[in-house]
Amino acid sequence: MIIIGGGFAGISLAKKLARQKAQVIMLDKHNYHTFQPLLYQVSTGGLEPDSIAYPIRKILSNYSNFFFRLAEVNEIDTENQQVISDIGNLEYDYLVLATGSVTNYFGNKEAEEHSMGMKTIPEALDLRSLILENFEQALLEDSKQRRDALMNFVIVGAGPTGVELAGALAEIKKGILPHDYPDLEVKNVQINLLQATPRVLDAMSEHASRKAEAFLTDLGVNVFVNTPVTSYDGEIVKTNSSLTFRSATVIWAAGVKGATVKGLDADDFITRMNRIKVNEYNLVKGFENIFAVGDIASMETEDFPQGHPMMAQPAIQQGRHLGDNFERLLSGKAMEPFKYNDKGSMATIGRNKAVVDFNRYKFHGMLAWFLWMFVHLFFLIGFRNRLVVFVNWVYNYIRFDKEARLIIRPYRKNRDLKI
Amino acid sequence: MIIIGGGFAGISLAKKLARQKAQVIMLDKHNYHTFQPLLYQVSTGGLEPDSIAYPIRKILSNYSNFFFRLAEVNEIDTENQQVISDIGNLEYDYLVLATGSVTNYFGNKEAEEHSMGMKTIPEALDLRSLILENFEQALLEDSKQRRDALMNFVIVGAGPTGVELAGALAEIKKGILPHDYPDLEVKNVQINLLQATPRVLDAMSEHASRKAEAFLTDLGVNVFVNTPVTSYDGEIVKTNSSLTFRSATVIWAAGVKGATVKGLDADDFITRMNRIKVNEYNLVKGFENIFAVGDIASMETEDFPQGHPMMAQPAIQQGRHLGDNFERLLSGKAMEPFKYNDKGSMATIGRNKAVVDFNRYKFHGMLAWFLWMFVHLFFLIGFRNRLVVFVNWVYNYIRFDKEARLIIRPYRKNRDLKI
Repeated sequence: MIIIGGGFAGISLAKKLARQKAQVIMLDKHNYHTFQPLLYQVSTGGLEPDSIAYPIRKILSNYSNFFFRLAEVNEIDTENQQVISDIGNLEYDYLVLATGSVTNYFGNKEAEEHSMGMKTIPEALDLRSLILENFEQALLEDSKQRRDALMNFVIVGAGPTGVELAGALAEIKKGILPHDYPDLEVKNVQINLLQATPRVLDAMSEHASRKAEAFLTDLGVNVFVNTPVTSYDGEIVKTNSSLTFRSATVIWAAGVKGATVKGLDADDFITRMNRIKVNEYNLVKGFENIFAVGDIASMETEDFPQGHPMMAQPAIQQGRHLGDNFERLLSGKAMEPFKYNDKGSMATIGRNKAVVDFNRYKFHGMLAWFLWMFVHLFFLIGFRNRLVVFVNWVYNYIRFDKEARLIIRPYRKNRDLKI
Repeated sequence: MIIIGGGFAGISLAKKLARQKAQVIMLDKHNYHTFQPLLYQVSTGGLEPDSIAYPIRKILSNYSNFFFRLAEVNEIDTENQQVISDIGNLEYDYLVLATGSVTNYFGNKEAEEHSMGMKTIPEALDLRSLILENFEQALLEDSKQRRDALMNFVIVGAGPTGVELAGALAEIKKGILPHDYPDLEVKNVQINLLQATPRVLDAMSEHASRKAEAFLTDLGVNVFVNTPVTSYDGEIVKTNSSLTFRSATVIWAAGVKGATVKGLDADDFITRMNRIKVNEYNLVKGFENIFAVGDIASMETEDFPQGHPMMAQPAIQQGRHLGDNFERLLSGKAMEPFKYNDKGSMATIGRNKAVVDFNRYKFHGMLAWFLWMFVHLFFLIGFRNRLVVFVNWVYNYIRFDKEARLIIRPYRKNRDLKI
């Protein structure tokens, strides 16, 4: 069996397959698992990148039936049952696609070229560098227009990622910039959060949306709903109305789409958001031995006619469920259909500010914030990572600080600044 | 006053100048101070980079007379008293060079091109990536010769950096590789430490050298003394004898040289190891207002006819001393000559294995190791950094582990592999 991808779905599956009577090869283009829900804290200097990454080999090292290879997959040759990759061709009897998702620019090539994504650790680090380089650069600019554009942040998309990033930037503006840049007009730093639909966090409850927007406004974030972005050329963000922004930094958090693989990307297989259609056993249509789990898989059910949300929870549950089904398969039993156990969702906006939808309970504030932290620590892989993240959070909380504001690899340098 | 460089010397000076009656501008090409003595632990996955870096702005934020600018200095125009940099020209009344040092390849351009240095955080991260990429690559190689070359590490220079790195690699070979790479012939991993002079750690006592070499041999490091490297072309390391190594990874820790700046780099100013000659007040010859401190400065005294060692302690002490002298200068008093208080030196080889020369006391083993850790924690800047490093060390010690083995930015990829 070959598993492509060591994200939430792939790792959850792997844990179930440990010590089963199957040889498993896991492929990933990174040698580590990324805890994506905390990437925004890396971008904003609150956490070090190494504390939300975990070596895949370390996870698999206890499983004697597992092999890992660092590889980029180019194509699936379903006819010959081969994975074609940059390290050669690998034969499979069973194949699991757990390739996850990538930033969705909805076909807007220009915006893609000029905006920052935040789906991987290198991307999060690039954003961290850019944010800090902006302030350094603003100090040197004589033109007020350019200075303001450097300090004008536009976040496209007010899902959890956009909301959390906006909140973290607002905290930096308030707690850090006045000390770090006493010679900068910090009040001119603008954090703009743009949402195409009528409310922020629109996958959550009305209560969560309302509270989150209030928290954001409290923190000084400019929230614009019903404001889809139509273009960004590296200088001007245009929207559906006359509203425009001159900005050197646009962060694109408007959505994700499935990370498809050649060979399984024909229209036959693909449904909305570029995801691969699977049945209730996570089997890809037309195959008995190719599964897809997590963000890449769209299982259309009565409760979820557009597939499950592209988030950690469905990925983890599908991974585990497929592991159990695979055991059934190996022992000749019938597989069981996947059923999603929706545990609710949550988002944090800033210190003591979070919103939680937990079944019929909707709450917000400090309790929600502590629950958010607890849940994220719980799902983080590795005791050391948990400890380091915990230490950072306690420190940041007590000191109102985010100390990892380091430009380790400059991003803008040697790039054109259009503003 | 302008200070160029936020290393040990520059920061120690800054702390003394805080709240003095002088406006101070600090320039650095990084926005953070690097704790260089622990870079080798970043390269070997024992510590995350962010825990040994500290934002310079955060250090200076309490000093209202300080300004920081992220800048690369191109030249000093001593005639017009200007620093010429990539952010423009800055006038100074007093100038302090605290530019530190760079890796010294002793003019060997070919070795410089193919070897890895380890003087900055990006360099340390590149080395971390390369070490891990080597093992991933070795798994894919059919040729035993290439496989062995990928697993053959050559460290040039057995000063503290070389010794500490060799020890850490040996611990990885023993404690981590067998679990992470069960399908690799780990016993073929070779760690070779080459020293040009007759003993390792030759700036320390005979006792320290002897014990360090014994510790290294215990750990499985191949130590070669009296073995200067003559060339490395990306494939073969040649030495002064018939001894050669086929290696994909040569780490150059053979020494450092002063990081000079144009305008003050004429033969007049420069002495051995590319350092700038200074008098007992750290004044550069021929100037009343240009100082040099730390690695870049060579103060030739009776006790140190070749200048002080290019290490943290002399840099810290010179920085502090110049701060006091500057206060005297401002209040019209006579400056006092610098006197180095040699507190001894130490190096660690592995868990419970270190050597310490402390005045006339020479000791080694577990006590030396704890002292080494205590001293390094003490000199690390920032409470959070100390805490995170401490947590990592305790974890690594208990678990025999180094978990930051992450290839965040691949290094070799897209480069030619010559072996």
